[in-house]
Amino acid sequence: MTLNTASNRPANDTPDAVDITDLGRRARQASRAMRNASGQDKSFALLAMARRLQAQQAALQAENARDLVAAEKNGLDPAMLERLQLSDKAIATMAAGLEQIAAMPDPIGSLSATQIRPNGMRVAQMRVPLGVIGIIYESRPNVTIDAAALCLKSGNATILRGGSEALHSNIALGAIISQGLADAGLPADAVQVVTTPDRAAVGQLVTMTEYVDVIVPRGGKGLITRLAAEARVPLIKHLDGNCHVYIDAAADLQKAHDIAVNAKTYRYGICGAMETLLVHTDIAEQILPRLAATLIAKGVELRGCERSRAIIPQMLTATPEDWETEFLAPILAVRIVDTLDQAIDHIARYGSEHTDAIVTENLQAAARFQREVDSSSVYVNLPTCFADGYEYGLGAEIGISTNRLHARGPVGLEGLTTMKWVLAGEGQLRG
Amino acid sequence: MTLNTASNRPANDTPDAVDITDLGRRARQASRAMRNASGQDKSFALLAMARRLQAQQAALQAENARDLVAAEKNGLDPAMLERLQLSDKAIATMAAGLEQIAAMPDPIGSLSATQIRPNGMRVAQMRVPLGVIGIIYESRPNVTIDAAALCLKSGNATILRGGSEALHSNIALGAIISQGLADAGLPADAVQVVTTPDRAAVGQLVTMTEYVDVIVPRGGKGLITRLAAEARVPLIKHLDGNCHVYIDAAADLQKAHDIAVNAKTYRYGICGAMETLLVHTDIAEQILPRLAATLIAKGVELRGCERSRAIIPQMLTATPEDWETEFLAPILAVRIVDTLDQAIDHIARYGSEHTDAIVTENLQAAARFQREVDSSSVYVNLPTCFADGYEYGLGAEIGISTNRLHARGPVGLEGLTTMKWVLAGEGQLRG
Repeated sequence: MTLNTASNRPANDTPDAVDITDLGRRARQASRAMRNASGQDKSFALLAMARRLQAQQAALQAENARDLVAAEKNGLDPAMLERLQLSDKAIATMAAGLEQIAAMPDPIGSLSATQIRPNGMRVAQMRVPLGVIGIIYESRPNVTIDAAALCLKSGNATILRGGSEALHSNIALGAIISQGLADAGLPADAVQVVTTPDRAAVGQLVTMTEYVDVIVPRGGKGLITRLAAEARVPLIKHLDGNCHVYIDAAADLQKAHDIAVNAKTYRYGICGAMETLLVHTDIAEQILPRLAATLIAKGVELRGCERSRAIIPQMLTATPEDWETEFLAPILAVRIVDTLDQAIDHIARYGSEHTDAIVTENLQAAARFQREVDSSSVYVNLPTCFADGYEYGLGAEIGISTNRLHARGPVGLEGLTTMKWVLAGEGQLRG
Repeated sequence: MTLNTASNRPANDTPDAVDITDLGRRARQASRAMRNASGQDKSFALLAMARRLQAQQAALQAENARDLVAAEKNGLDPAMLERLQLSDKAIATMAAGLEQIAAMPDPIGSLSATQIRPNGMRVAQMRVPLGVIGIIYESRPNVTIDAAALCLKSGNATILRGGSEALHSNIALGAIISQGLADAGLPADAVQVVTTPDRAAVGQLVTMTEYVDVIVPRGGKGLITRLAAEARVPLIKHLDGNCHVYIDAAADLQKAHDIAVNAKTYRYGICGAMETLLVHTDIAEQILPRLAATLIAKGVELRGCERSRAIIPQMLTATPEDWETEFLAPILAVRIVDTLDQAIDHIARYGSEHTDAIVTENLQAAARFQREVDSSSVYVNLPTCFADGYEYGLGAEIGISTNRLHARGPVGLEGLTTMKWVLAGEGQLRG
């Protein structure tokens, strides 16, 4: 890793402006070596980082404390402060993540779609790194380790641009990454941490198509919308998660209750949280009273259509805007529909193509819902809060993509790779 | 298909400006029906188009003649005129293409990466259409049929924007597509042909992210560079094809000669044509005299480095610019290198990551070249002119992508699709 600010500078000093073009050039250069790094060297680097994280815990927390003091002085809210903190548990989780990624199979170099053509030549596709990946993220310093680990394992060079509020934490984590790379004999520029507060650096990073192959922004919708407007480099991005659960006429009442409660209340702030509940009219009177009681008891505010309010008068009146809103809060919109088609239409019109679920015991309804709902994840009899790469068996995730091209839904190591065609023959000619 | 200009208007009349937003909205609507169209209906539509193409050959050629007359009057060069012409052979080729695509397996709905998670839920990926695809192309009217067929087979709605010089041909081909869709009961808006000469329409098409999921530009580098600068919709694009053949020290002389000659002379104008030949110094004196004689006899101009000129004095002197140039002409740059590494470095520095080949009998050199050269296609003992979806067994291709994300190299039906995650359980909950 290369630090682009001097880490032994006093806390209030402004780091120098960084030459982002030079940084890109060095990342591109390092990516050539990383492409051919062995799986063993990559794993060794990750394990070395895990050990150093734990060995240097006290020093790391001292640097983190500087950020926490500054953040408190700047009036950051408690939730932000919590995200910024490198607690013992947060450090242990980062180290465990490094070990887990080290233990995963190397995605690079595997062959697929192998075939022999009529002229005898062999055609296959080989999995290869994307090249140079830029990660732009907000306050959580653990992203520095998690993102670096995934990019390194997948053979990419990485440019990390964290939030200025985590400056000292990120410099300290960057030093650990740097040592781990050196331990394994991997190039120092394979991971570069940009700590300049200059916002123009981000603008340069997302337009530098010559040196950066893809940007993964991690943060709120504001950040991502702004980057998407400026970017010329492709983004693997996450926009809205306006997720639906549809309780079909043929739903099992107990499953429907438990799935809806879990989908809404597992965690309110995650992108897979249910934001609108759709209920088939034939089952509404059976399911809604008990379900509403549970949700209200858990402090969820219900906003219903007129027909659901006729069953549960405590509901507020839902506005058309509610159907479009990702609340990320203990608020749920509720609508009664007459048919499966109406449910599918509602999701097509108001949804965000993230994660949507049906609860039903009717196989045909399940199959139609799964085929016709055009979301990155479509579930049968499962709560939408399962939207997570670990739950899908990806081992780790860099984020959830709401793009349609390339990686869609939870993005694991494969999403940070691409394919090349490899052909071999014995002098076959064309024409 | 919906025609957006009245086809029975006099030839010199300017078609009305088209409401591109409305066209996008209708494409999005049609894409919902196309997503669920059966493989049988899609194949039936393609076969109906093939029959109607042949049945209406005379009428089609009459419309084509109007474009040819206008083009001649406007002084189009003979090569452009040839591309514009719908000869008997061109029509038969289009019909055969439709039949071939009809016979291919439906890519939509297949499941892959199926696994059962520890909690018993099933996770899989389902192949689904991209949605709405825009095709922007130049004079060849056959693209209207070929692109419509591939997009239709892959379950997408399509907006086709051809060159104004092919206006009447495209309107007539559009009418045939329209009839074929109606024959199969597929929505009329599944394929829309834009024939407005208004260039602003293209600017609108490539920025309308709400209604268009991807644009495939087919044309020269000028068109593609211009679109890439304007686009907000992702492009599956083709830039340079600066392809290399490297003759290794351990090459078989006969294979090396034949592969290099085929790579250069199969067709000069294709993106897979070899533009630079790299030769290992140990074999240069053995291979270059005979190879140069063959190429010179075929009218190829050779531009060599000083060391190759010492062997073949008839060569002109290559400039650094020659290493970077995609000649698309009977011109070849020649350079002698001392090692495999130098060859790989040359390709990394000057190449365009399109298609590059090694000629060698040394397995280790072949493996290193194939692993370390970061091009979308890397060959061993094959000429670069094999860069073509048909040759790779894709059955058909929409183009060759020089992108790194999503589709890379020859793009077949799969490149016009994406995946969604489909999960099924029995009420498993999270946390």
